[in-house]
Amino acid sequence: MKKILTLAFAAAFAVSAFAQDQTIKLPAPSVKGGLSIMETLRNRQSIREYSSKKLKLQDLSNLCWAAIGINRPESSKLTAPTAMNKQEVTLYYIDHKGAYIYNAKSNALELVSKGNHYDLVVAKQDFVKDAPAVLVIVSNTSVFDQTSSLYAYTDAGMVSQNISLFCAGHKMATVPRGMMDRDGLSRVLHLRSGEVPVLNHPVGYLK
Amino acid sequence: MKKILTLAFAAAFAVSAFAQDQTIKLPAPSVKGGLSIMETLRNRQSIREYSSKKLKLQDLSNLCWAAIGINRPESSKLTAPTAMNKQEVTLYYIDHKGAYIYNAKSNALELVSKGNHYDLVVAKQDFVKDAPAVLVIVSNTSVFDQTSSLYAYTDAGMVSQNISLFCAGHKMATVPRGMMDRDGLSRVLHLRSGEVPVLNHPVGYLK
Repeated sequence: MKKILTLAFAAAFAVSAFAQDQTIKLPAPSVKGGLSIMETLRNRQSIREYSSKKLKLQDLSNLCWAAIGINRPESSKLTAPTAMNKQEVTLYYIDHKGAYIYNAKSNALELVSKGNHYDLVVAKQDFVKDAPAVLVIVSNTSVFDQTSSLYAYTDAGMVSQNISLFCAGHKMATVPRGMMDRDGLSRVLHLRSGEVPVLNHPVGYLK
Repeated sequence: MKKILTLAFAAAFAVSAFAQDQTIKLPAPSVKGGLSIMETLRNRQSIREYSSKKLKLQDLSNLCWAAIGINRPESSKLTAPTAMNKQEVTLYYIDHKGAYIYNAKSNALELVSKGNHYDLVVAKQDFVKDAPAVLVIVSNTSVFDQTSSLYAYTDAGMVSQNISLFCAGHKMATVPRGMMDRDGLSRVLHLRSGEVPVLNHPVGYLK
């Protein structure tokens, strides 16, 4: 009996640990604070040196929300506009343990691929290795017809600037980058046809 | 003699009035103030209703600087990043009197085409007519080779988000738009081959 109970507990624990591994539940974003918008713009710069200190969960939540969180819950509209409100931009979070998709509605990072996929975003720029996390901005070009497909890229740029400004307003460091292994990332992130990793952002505290 | 002096004064006055018409000299941008970055992101929304009240020169200066002004004079680097620091994005300002190019270095709007060119940016969306000004974001695709030409669009998106956030942080209204008469604007703004009007922003005070 004791053995069975032990096994049951072990199984329950494993399931819970597994679930925990699958999803990083974020605390509610704190939508106050940071420098003023003008001081933030004055501080905006591309920074390629990062403390390797892991991001605090609260900062990670605030960062993802700033990038492309829901700022009007009644209409599910976002901090970044999208052409024709297509909401075709998706944010992925990569750390040394896995790659996760940001679910703005449930305020969580959901595991997409376990493992260390840094090589796909480092792409020979070694400074990226020091960052505790990399955000990848994916845009779904297939929601637009040919005449408007470039909006997938301008919309991605808007999300990128939200990330740059969040960091500039919170003494954090980032740089928007185009370099990455797009084919490799598309496989690891399980992207569908038309979904393109457009830009990525190593993020960390100032060194 | 009196007549000659009068003529000389009149000529001098005309030259000065002409120069004034050619260039709108902006006051130095005030790089403090506005809401905090998080409150700014919470307020970010696309607004299509504008007070027709003309923009104050100080607000116009702050707005242009926020969009793509120089935030590090020592290196001439900008509030918005550009891929490989190509600085290929140019900001134009259109009001009912003319179309002007933003010169970040001299902090001035220099006349490019006199006259009312609103029709080119209204493009059948009549709400734009109410805005006292429209900013046009032009990107020079020719600075990139074919493999990186999409950066011209992501970079334009970053400038656009600076404009959206400046407005959200200062109780002003704007919306990023793709609709416009690109050929007509290219003529009026005297764009060169490879320069593309990517997005535009009607801007104004809240109605």
